Amino acid sequence: MQFTELVENLKRGQSGVVDFKIEKNPVILSAASLDKANENEISFLDKNSPLNLKNLLKTSQASALLLPANDAFIIEIVNQLSFDWILLKEPKIAFAETLDFLYPSEREREGIHKSAVIGENVKIGPGVSIGANVYIGDDTEIGAETIIHAGVVVYKKVKIGAKNLIHANSVIHSGSSLGDECVINSNAVIGGEGFGFVPTSNGWKKMPQVGIVILKSKVEVGSGSTIDRPSVGETIIGEDTKIDNLVQIGHGVTTGRGCAMAAQVGIAGGAEIGDGVILAGQVGVSNKVRVGDRVIASSKTGIVSNIEAGKVISGFPAIPNKLWLRCSANFKKLPEIAKAIRQLDRKNAR
Amino acid sequence: MQFTELVENLKRGQSGVVDFKIEKNPVILSAASLDKANENEISFLDKNSPLNLKNLLKTSQASALLLPANDAFIIEIVNQLSFDWILLKEPKIAFAETLDFLYPSEREREGIHKSAVIGENVKIGPGVSIGANVYIGDDTEIGAETIIHAGVVVYKKVKIGAKNLIHANSVIHSGSSLGDECVINSNAVIGGEGFGFVPTSNGWKKMPQVGIVILKSKVEVGSGSTIDRPSVGETIIGEDTKIDNLVQIGHGVTTGRGCAMAAQVGIAGGAEIGDGVILAGQVGVSNKVRVGDRVIASSKTGIVSNIEAGKVISGFPAIPNKLWLRCSANFKKLPEIAKAIRQLDRKNAR
Amino acid sequence: MQFTELVENLKRGQSGVVDFKIEKNPVILSAASLDKANENEISFLDKNSPLNLKNLLKTSQASALLLPANDAFIIEIVNQLSFDWILLKEPKIAFAETLDFLYPSEREREGIHKSAVIGENVKIGPGVSIGANVYIGDDTEIGAETIIHAGVVVYKKVKIGAKNLIHANSVIHSGSSLGDECVINSNAVIGGEGFGFVPTSNGWKKMPQVGIVILKSKVEVGSGSTIDRPSVGETIIGEDTKIDNLVQIGHGVTTGRGCAMAAQVGIAGGAEIGDGVILAGQVGVSNKVRVGDRVIASSKTGIVSNIEAGKVISGFPAIPNKLWLRCSANFKKLPEIAKAIRQLDRKNAR
Repeated sequence: MQFTELVENLKRGQSGVVDFKIEKNPVILSAASLDKANENEISFLDKNSPLNLKNLLKTSQASALLLPANDAFIIEIVNQLSFDWILLKEPKIAFAETLDFLYPSEREREGIHKSAVIGENVKIGPGVSIGANVYIGDDTEIGAETIIHAGVVVYKKVKIGAKNLIHANSVIHSGSSLGDECVINSNAVIGGEGFGFVPTSNGWKKMPQVGIVILKSKVEVGSGSTIDRPSVGETIIGEDTKIDNLVQIGHGVTTGRGCAMAAQVGIAGGAEIGDGVILAGQVGVSNKVRVGDRVIASSKTGIVSNIEAGKVISGFPAIPNKLWLRCSANFKKLPEIAKAIRQLDRKNAR
Repeated sequence: MQFTELVENLKRGQSGVVDFKIEKNPVILSAASLDKANENEISFLDKNSPLNLKNLLKTSQASALLLPANDAFIIEIVNQLSFDWILLKEPKIAFAETLDFLYPSEREREGIHKSAVIGENVKIGPGVSIGANVYIGDDTEIGAETIIHAGVVVYKKVKIGAKNLIHANSVIHSGSSLGDECVINSNAVIGGEGFGFVPTSNGWKKMPQVGIVILKSKVEVGSGSTIDRPSVGETIIGEDTKIDNLVQIGHGVTTGRGCAMAAQVGIAGGAEIGDGVILAGQVGVSNKVRVGDRVIASSKTGIVSNIEAGKVISGFPAIPNKLWLRCSANFKKLPEIAKAIRQLDRKNAR
Repeated sequence: MQFTELVENLKRGQSGVVDFKIEKNPVILSAASLDKANENEISFLDKNSPLNLKNLLKTSQASALLLPANDAFIIEIVNQLSFDWILLKEPKIAFAETLDFLYPSEREREGIHKSAVIGENVKIGPGVSIGANVYIGDDTEIGAETIIHAGVVVYKKVKIGAKNLIHANSVIHSGSSLGDECVINSNAVIGGEGFGFVPTSNGWKKMPQVGIVILKSKVEVGSGSTIDRPSVGETIIGEDTKIDNLVQIGHGVTTGRGCAMAAQVGIAGGAEIGDGVILAGQVGVSNKVRVGDRVIASSKTGIVSNIEAGKVISGFPAIPNKLWLRCSANFKKLPEIAKAIRQLDRKNAR
């Protein structure tokens, strides 16, 4: 792709082209980070990059750059150098769009691999690709242009919408429902049975888990993540919610739209997560807790009670992030604090 | 199922029917939570439910209710309304039994799917179901009425008892042994090799892991969970122990009977867990630690040393739960505490 | 194996044979721990074993022992007993070598199982074993003597070196590269897409993940672990680095040589891990953080900023281990500390 072509493409996108400089009009063949890019490669700098990243501009071998507008320091550097560049309101979005242009996703072969096993009364839409050794249970529906990779197991009575991408060896249990344009990464498990056991004098009595899991459209589920179905009713993942690897979503959880849950997050049964909630890595949410819209929890936070919308929280049990930072700074001083009290005590005892 | 039939069924169960009211004798078609139930649905309220749940009774559309005996507030509400109800010593057990009646588990087709690959000298009991693309290694035994879903891989010389339910794409390694009535959920790994490496001047020397994993009867293992085999001897999961999703059980761990381990718990090699131990989500147990019978650890607890039977613990390192609650409450005050000391110091210096 | 034969074998190994006693020259058939060993079994005691383990020597039924040299207490015990023994500089390495002798790994059948599906232009080296229901994508290379167990899915354009061992139902994504002698345990996912989404006014814009994952030689990846590919460039796991079960390695992470990461560790995108780093269970590393060579982090540590080489750290946020131990000891006293301050305040107010 010629640089001029990229400029025209980005103008039609969402990244807000502010200005650009075309000098050599290089051919862009691929993309790389600033320190690793070579000739015919494009790189980017995000808004508010730290100084050490900005200084990499001076030595970068990239042929073209996507840069934040309104950064005098960056403009000054690049004006002394011979890059072709584009200034953007959102350089990171521009980089994502550029990768889409440079690396269009390969079409999988349409059709059903001869080793796949398809149950009875399965409805398969046009343009669907079903890979080797896939198993599809009875009465399941698969929408148009959905791609199912090798080794996937879909149980009975599952509804899969259009343009879903389901990676190898993942499992989707009976009754589950996927909207459109979802991505299920490898070895994820959707709709496995919730963990419900009632203590009795004879040991655990299993609470049957006869509910279902619903993934709205544009949900993505990471490799090895597990989303359980409830005893009755539904576990619901809201539209455009993105779930990283090895995340556990318990039975009967509901999440709003546009959430992001980083790797190894665990959400216990019945918790209600609002819209736009962001949970960093290894966060835990206790059962039946309500987490308000746009709450942000930093890594390893333990949320054990309801959190109001918009809060930024940390620690276990979760407290406001700023308070937690000050408490943590003082935690390190606990031996000194204890010593100071012993000394004050002694003085007062005199 | 007619309501009267349900009453008779529950009388034969473990939930302790105390009283019931039959007025409309509705047909019960399904079950739902109190706020979502509609006509011809049954719902329940557990013992010691909070007031906001009890108040849902006033607006619930359910046709029948399972309720705790001896709760005057509840009795008063329902006597003003037209539900048919059953009062029970254990309404949650009654609800579990009711789900069993309403949703009898579907029988899988008996027999071996033609795409399954069965090794040499495999013994398969009567009534066994083996799904599509399953692989069973040589010299393995599968007991009567066990169900193995699509994509499961069983290595060599595995012993699987009767009435086990093994979900899709899970893996059971050589030499492992399962009792009867176990449930292995999707993508779980039983008997993978333990993590053992000895540092040498040439890098890590692998400690061979030639032991096995034994699951006693009625063990359940969650989706994506992993139970490792040890270098020598056995990893043993005691009867009726229930393990949630994404749990790691290290090599040589032993657990007692009737334990429950919530999602993302990790138990390091050689730990000994007693009977009836309950570990909440994301708890960690260090290697070779002994956790006594009936210990309860709240979420994210880190158990780094032996714990006596019956203790309720929290925090990292684990301390008694009540102490931890008070310490956590004071953790939030650390900035104030530090400030108070500075002030006292200044006063004393005068 | 006769005991005399074992002595000769160990002399050729790395464990440093210092002395030995041959009295009965027993046949060694298997190995077991000191408390469980029976006749014709060998057991070992490691250097610096605690007294309760050493005392097990007095009652052990083992026929032969691997023991640390230079431990007068042990020598005295065993001289009163009738074991045949070998004294070693590294008894644990000797035990690992002994297990290698006693339990030589079974050769898998060479060749491609007839149920495996092999893509176009796949290069398969001599002595390769490919199990049942495996799928290998187009343009993939598999080096000599590599063993691929049942149900594994390898996408397109993957390079797999020689003598790799790939366990059941694991998944290796397009473009990934494995060196020689790696072990991929069951249900692991190598090269799944990184978790990258950019917020826009229309919801999340996906950052395409077009990079690859490179595992150098002798890397081991535990059951259910996930290693993501980055948007551009590589995720690299250094030679001889060992990764336990359910570990998450984010997109663009690099690790050095000879690291060990215990179960449920999570490393966020772009983190740089040095050589010989040891991370205990459930440790988290924040994105883009640098962890210096030979850093050791105890369990549940949260590493949120760069750590210098050689440090031993604990806690969240991570602080020096010794400081953390003292702080944790004082954390338990927070209620007393708060009370002491209230009392001092009152005294001072008088």
